[in-house]
Amino acid sequence: MSSYVEQSAVTVVGLGPMGRALASAFLDAGVRTTVWNRTPGRDTELIARGALGARTVEEAVAASPLTVVCVVNYDASDAVLRPDAVTAALKGRTLVNLSADIPDRARDTARWAAEQGIAYLDGAIMSPTTTIGTPQGVFLHSGPAELYERHRPVLDALGGSHTYLGEDIGRAAAYDIALLDIFWTAMTGYMHALAVAKAEGITARELAPFAEGIGAIMAPVFAETAGEVDDATFSGEGNPISSAASTMAHVIHTSEAHGIEAGVMRAAEGLARRVIAEGHGADGATRMVELLSRR
Amino acid sequence: MSSYVEQSAVTVVGLGPMGRALASAFLDAGVRTTVWNRTPGRDTELIARGALGARTVEEAVAASPLTVVCVVNYDASDAVLRPDAVTAALKGRTLVNLSADIPDRARDTARWAAEQGIAYLDGAIMSPTTTIGTPQGVFLHSGPAELYERHRPVLDALGGSHTYLGEDIGRAAAYDIALLDIFWTAMTGYMHALAVAKAEGITARELAPFAEGIGAIMAPVFAETAGEVDDATFSGEGNPISSAASTMAHVIHTSEAHGIEAGVMRAAEGLARRVIAEGHGADGATRMVELLSRR
Ligand SMILES: NC(=O)c1ccc[n+]([C@@H]2O[C@H](COP(=O)([O-])OP(=O)(O)OC[C@H]3O[C@@H](n4cnc5c(N)ncnc54)[C@H](OP(=O)(O)O)[C@@H]3O)[C@@H](O)[C@H]2O)c1
Ligand SMILES: NC(=O)c1ccc[n+]([C@@H]2O[C@H](COP(=O)([O-])OP(=O)(O)OC[C@H]3O[C@@H](n4cnc5c(N)ncnc54)[C@H](OP(=O)(O)O)[C@@H]3O)[C@@H](O)[C@H]2O)c1
Repeated sequence: MSSYVEQSAVTVVGLGPMGRALASAFLDAGVRTTVWNRTPGRDTELIARGALGARTVEEAVAASPLTVVCVVNYDASDAVLRPDAVTAALKGRTLVNLSADIPDRARDTARWAAEQGIAYLDGAIMSPTTTIGTPQGVFLHSGPAELYERHRPVLDALGGSHTYLGEDIGRAAAYDIALLDIFWTAMTGYMHALAVAKAEGITARELAPFAEGIGAIMAPVFAETAGEVDDATFSGEGNPISSAASTMAHVIHTSEAHGIEAGVMRAAEGLARRVIAEGHGADGATRMVELLSRR
Repeated sequence: MSSYVEQSAVTVVGLGPMGRALASAFLDAGVRTTVWNRTPGRDTELIARGALGARTVEEAVAASPLTVVCVVNYDASDAVLRPDAVTAALKGRTLVNLSADIPDRARDTARWAAEQGIAYLDGAIMSPTTTIGTPQGVFLHSGPAELYERHRPVLDALGGSHTYLGEDIGRAAAYDIALLDIFWTAMTGYMHALAVAKAEGITARELAPFAEGIGAIMAPVFAETAGEVDDATFSGEGNPISSAASTMAHVIHTSEAHGIEAGVMRAAEGLARRVIAEGHGADGATRMVELLSRR
């Protein structure tokens, strides 16, 4: 087997929506792809498209110098990778864990991998399955730089942008947590908004173009306010938190008047009210960061 | 006074960040602009740029056929507009209330205006002060169509897109509430994410480019999922809520391990867990809308 082919072979462990998207992108890029999933049958379509199946996970990881694991969390990846036979098969090979979890789990996996003679890179995927294999995919990586450089050609087959965050193995997970905090909070806000809209006789399709407009202003607002947080200026010049709190109260009132619980917004409004009670009502919402960070 | 000049005169009541942005855009467009604010001194810069000051709010509204009010909420606009002298001065003129509040307050204002012989349009502004006078401004209007058409030329001086939502006077506020629900939930999520990132040694400026990336995917995700809510399909094919709940738990764990409260995400996770407990873990986060709407 030539070194080129070896470089261009990958095993994907975990064939949920994201694992399937990863395997599919590797196949599209002409990488020799071996696949495995705990529950059988998830590989059928991929095998029909040229992926190699495997009876066991140890057989799967033995088929490639690089294994990409993408399962629900690190309890799941531990369950799959830590049995002796699998650990033995991984020895001398590289593992990239693209499952989401907390930074400490990545650090723990790095310790285990080092003990077992497994080269280990951590990573996180910051974009939906539909972006995988397209320029819109967003991947974060952390761990040994040399390892990242060595496997970059294969990882690049996934398309999108790959950012290397440094040697601290927990860094990708730390970014992941912060970014998923934004994503899932915003998504829950959208779901709540759709429920309130529905109660007001507005369909999701009617609200969507305007919701997209709100989505479109989030990116520039995020960019603009970042500096205020680092510099601790917390300016409310364009939009004081007192005004935001008034608006949040309207959302809660309208929601609850329709019998729709508003726990998420109640928690958000609570933060705003505390900022105001501390005398910072003329500051911006950025003041919440200081409130939350205080210990 | 020619009819053209009359058409092109406006009074702006309320000179907070948004009222000042509105008055400024009217001035830039060459509209004769009279301004008033409860707390004196907020008009100085605008007057230096050609705005007309007024000693009282009744004098201000008497100066133009159209008054645009933009204060914190309808308690504030009632306090400004409902004293007898002001109501008398508004009689036979048009009032557009661009302050944010709940739909019932717009309906109540419409009843009051009808009794007083004041023509009344309601509206909402869905974009930051920096967008006013630019193509990025987003304005929603509801109320009598004839009134909207009549004043559109002056309102257009604010730039941006103006959407007329129909005769139901509460419609603009209903959209406003739903859209602000998204905006302030997402903003609070971002503030929380910045606190967590900070605790992990990541600055706001470091996180910002990736946060912008999350912002950029919100709009398409909002668009894609709207249909699933209207059609009650709630598909979790690309991203099951069981996976989201796992991620939410990671955010809570990491946050609280740093001593950062996670009330907003706890409320969001609670919704996801209830969806899962009802047997819908393989569905998408869209299932939350059905949970919230159930009464
Ligand atoms: N979907 C997205 O849009 C998206 C975007 C960015 C990041 N991610 C991340 O990508 C990872 C995978 O996500 P996903 O969308 O594919 O769906 P998921 O529901 O998070 O993960 C499903 C995968 O996890 C496996 N799994 C769960 N518990 C297991 C266990 N105890 N042992 C072995 N395998 C187990 C499943 O195997 P079975 O089939 O046997 O259950 C399946 O392969 C997650 O960490 C997620 O946060 C997803
Ligand atoms: N800023 C934004 O980015 C933005 C974006 C979209 C929509 N909006 C909406 O626009 C409206 C105005 O917002 P804003 O940003 O200008 O700041 P704001 O803090 O919401 O409102 C400040 C204005 O309200 C006036 N006010 C407050 N209480 C009053 C009372 N009891 N009587 C009379 N006036 C009173 C203030 O007068 P004093 O100076 O006398 O206190 C000032 O003119 C709000 O409804 C807001 O939700 C704002």
